[in-house]
Amino acid sequence: MRIVVTGGFGFLGRKLTDALLARRTLCGAPVERLLLVDRYVPAAAPVADHPLVEVVQGDLRERLDDVFARPVDVVVHLASAVSAECESDFDLGMAANLDTTRALLDAARAQSAAGGPTPRVVFSSSVAVYGSDPAAPLPPVVDEWTLPAPQSSYGMQKRVCEQLIAEYTRRGFVDGRVARLMTVVVRPGAPNAAASGFLSGIIREPLSGLPATCPVDPGLRVALASPRRTVEGILRVTEAVRGSGPGELEGRLPVNLPALTVTVAEMLDTLRRVAGDAVAGLVTVAPDPAVEAIVGSWPASFADTCARALGLRPDDSFESVVRAYVEDHPEAVSVRLPGTSAPPAAPRRPEGAG
Amino acid sequence: MRIVVTGGFGFLGRKLTDALLARRTLCGAPVERLLLVDRYVPAAAPVADHPLVEVVQGDLRERLDDVFARPVDVVVHLASAVSAECESDFDLGMAANLDTTRALLDAARAQSAAGGPTPRVVFSSSVAVYGSDPAAPLPPVVDEWTLPAPQSSYGMQKRVCEQLIAEYTRRGFVDGRVARLMTVVVRPGAPNAAASGFLSGIIREPLSGLPATCPVDPGLRVALASPRRTVEGILRVTEAVRGSGPGELEGRLPVNLPALTVTVAEMLDTLRRVAGDAVAGLVTVAPDPAVEAIVGSWPASFADTCARALGLRPDDSFESVVRAYVEDHPEAVSVRLPGTSAPPAAPRRPEGAG
Repeated sequence: MRIVVTGGFGFLGRKLTDALLARRTLCGAPVERLLLVDRYVPAAAPVADHPLVEVVQGDLRERLDDVFARPVDVVVHLASAVSAECESDFDLGMAANLDTTRALLDAARAQSAAGGPTPRVVFSSSVAVYGSDPAAPLPPVVDEWTLPAPQSSYGMQKRVCEQLIAEYTRRGFVDGRVARLMTVVVRPGAPNAAASGFLSGIIREPLSGLPATCPVDPGLRVALASPRRTVEGILRVTEAVRGSGPGELEGRLPVNLPALTVTVAEMLDTLRRVAGDAVAGLVTVAPDPAVEAIVGSWPASFADTCARALGLRPDDSFESVVRAYVEDHPEAVSVRLPGTSAPPAAPRRPEGAG
Repeated sequence: MRIVVTGGFGFLGRKLTDALLARRTLCGAPVERLLLVDRYVPAAAPVADHPLVEVVQGDLRERLDDVFARPVDVVVHLASAVSAECESDFDLGMAANLDTTRALLDAARAQSAAGGPTPRVVFSSSVAVYGSDPAAPLPPVVDEWTLPAPQSSYGMQKRVCEQLIAEYTRRGFVDGRVARLMTVVVRPGAPNAAASGFLSGIIREPLSGLPATCPVDPGLRVALASPRRTVEGILRVTEAVRGSGPGELEGRLPVNLPALTVTVAEMLDTLRRVAGDAVAGLVTVAPDPAVEAIVGSWPASFADTCARALGLRPDDSFESVVRAYVEDHPEAVSVRLPGTSAPPAAPRRPEGAG
C-alpha cells in the first residue's frame, strides 16, 4: 500500500501521518510507503527519517511526475490555499485549489488508464462549500442534500473540486471520496490565513499566555471538530467500502464530518472554566466585518446521518476539545491550569509573519 | 450596446440573433453591434452581411482578444460541446466547456478590471446538471434548490461553470446569469451529437419523410421547451434587473427555464394527430441503454416558480410545439399535413456525418 499525503507537513498532514505510522495498515493492507508532498518541509522533521516515509518537496502540480513515479494506491489530498488567502488573491486560490486538484486527478487517471491501480483519492473539502445566498438561505439544519451556494472563493473552489472528483469517480478514472471538514479546533502552532483561524487562536493564544482577538460577535454559532475527530473522519472515509449496506459509502456525494455546534461565547466560557479568569481575560472581542462575512456564512448545525452511518461521531463537548489540545500539546500551554500541578511550559513567542 | 453571442451560428445562436435584430434593443439600449463567434460559419449566412453584425470565426478561446478588442456589454455564451461528445471524449468536453468558459470569464473580468464596463455574461446551462445519484435520488419535482448531482461529464461541466459564474459575479468581475435550458424541441436541421437529439429527430425526420429511431422506452418522461420559448427565456434572464422585487433576479442561483413535461409516447401520439398514421409510422422504437442512461437521469418535472416570477411560462402543449416548428420551418416539412392545402416541401436529404 503506497500512500500519498499532500500537504503532508501541514498541521493535519502531520497528525494524519502520525496516525498512519501508528496503525501501520490502511484499507486492510500494510502501509509500505508514505509519501509526504509539501511546499514547505521543516528543517527539523523527525518523521522524514522514518523508514516508511519519503518526502517530495515542492509545488504539488510541478512534482506530480515524482509523486506518481511508482504506483500510488491512496492519495489523501490535504494541500490547499486557505480561505482568507483565496479571498485576497483570487488567482492564487484558483491555481492552488482548482488547477492543482485537477492536475492531481489527471495524474491519478493517467495511472489507471495505463493499466496501473485505480487510485483511491480522498479530498478534504470544507464546510465553506455552504453559504447563505440571499435567494437561497441555508436551512436551520444542513445535510448532504442541502444545495451548496458558496459565499467565498475558497468555498467555490472546494465545491468545484468535489464535483470533479464525483465525475472522475463515475467515469472510473479514480475511486474518489470527499470528506467535508468542519472548522478544526484547536489547531496548534502559529496562526494561519484562514478566516476561521481565530476559532483556534482564542483558545491557543491565551493558553500560551498571549492575548488574542475575537473578530466576531460571541453569539455566532460555529461547527467545530477536534483534530483527533477530524483525522478519524478522514481515515474512515478513506477506508469505507463502497456499497449500500450499513457502514458503507453509498453514491458519490461528499460526507459532512460530524460537527460540534457551539457559540463563540460558550467557547470562551469553557476557556474560563478550564484555565481561569486571568487566561480568559486575554481575549478581546473586536468584530471584523470581513471575517464575520465569511465565517458567518457557514452553517453551524448539521444532520450527521451519513457520518454516523460510517460510525463517526462529534466531539463530546467543547471542554473535551480543549482538554485534548492540552494533552496533545503540553509544550504549547504556558499557563498553570486550575487543578493541575505540572509546571507550565515556557511562554511561546508568536511565530510566522504575525 | 455591444453584444457577443458565442456559438452564434448554431441553431439557438441563429434564433437569438434573429430575435435581437428584430428587437433592435436589449436591456433598454439599442443594439449597436452584434458579434457572432463560432468555429463554423456557413458559406451562405445572410445575417453576416447585416450592418450591425460582425463575425469572428474560430475557436472561442483563441479568439478572445478579438472578441474583447472593443468593450463588450453583454455576452450570451451558447457555445458548447454537447452531451454525447463529452461522454465519448472527456478531454474535449473539459476543454470546450470548462476551460473555454473560464477563459471567457477571465477575459470579461480583465475588461472590468481595466476600468471598462462590467460585462453581463449569460450562460446557457442545462437540465443535465441534475441527475439521479443512487445515494441522492431526485425528488419528484425539481426546483433551483434541488442539489444537482450530474450523471454525465457534460452535466458536471455545466454545473462547474454555473459555480464559476456565481463566484465571478459575487466578486464583481462580471454580472453573470445562468439560464438552465430544457431539452429544446424541435431543433431544425441535421441531427447533432446530443444524447437528447432524438427528441427532435422523432418529430423532424418523419415530417421530412425520413425514418427515425426512438432510442428510449416511450414511457420516459422528458422536460421540453420550444426554440421560441427558449430564446424568450434567455432574453428575459439577460434583461432581468437584479433585486428582490417582483420580476427581478434575486441572488446568484441559476434559473430553470420553464418546462413542458411529456412522455415520449405523448410526443409520438401528437405527431400522429398532426401528421397522420403514415408519418408517425416512420418512427421505430429501439431502446439504446447508453442514451437511456443519460437522458433517463435528467429530471422531467419542475417547479418553475423562479421562471414564472420572471414572467416566463412553458409551452402550452406539445401540439403547439410541433405546429410552431411547422410554421417556422416550412422548408423542412415534406409531407402533406391533414387539414392543410399547401404543397409540401421537397424531401430533405439527411445532412452531416449521419
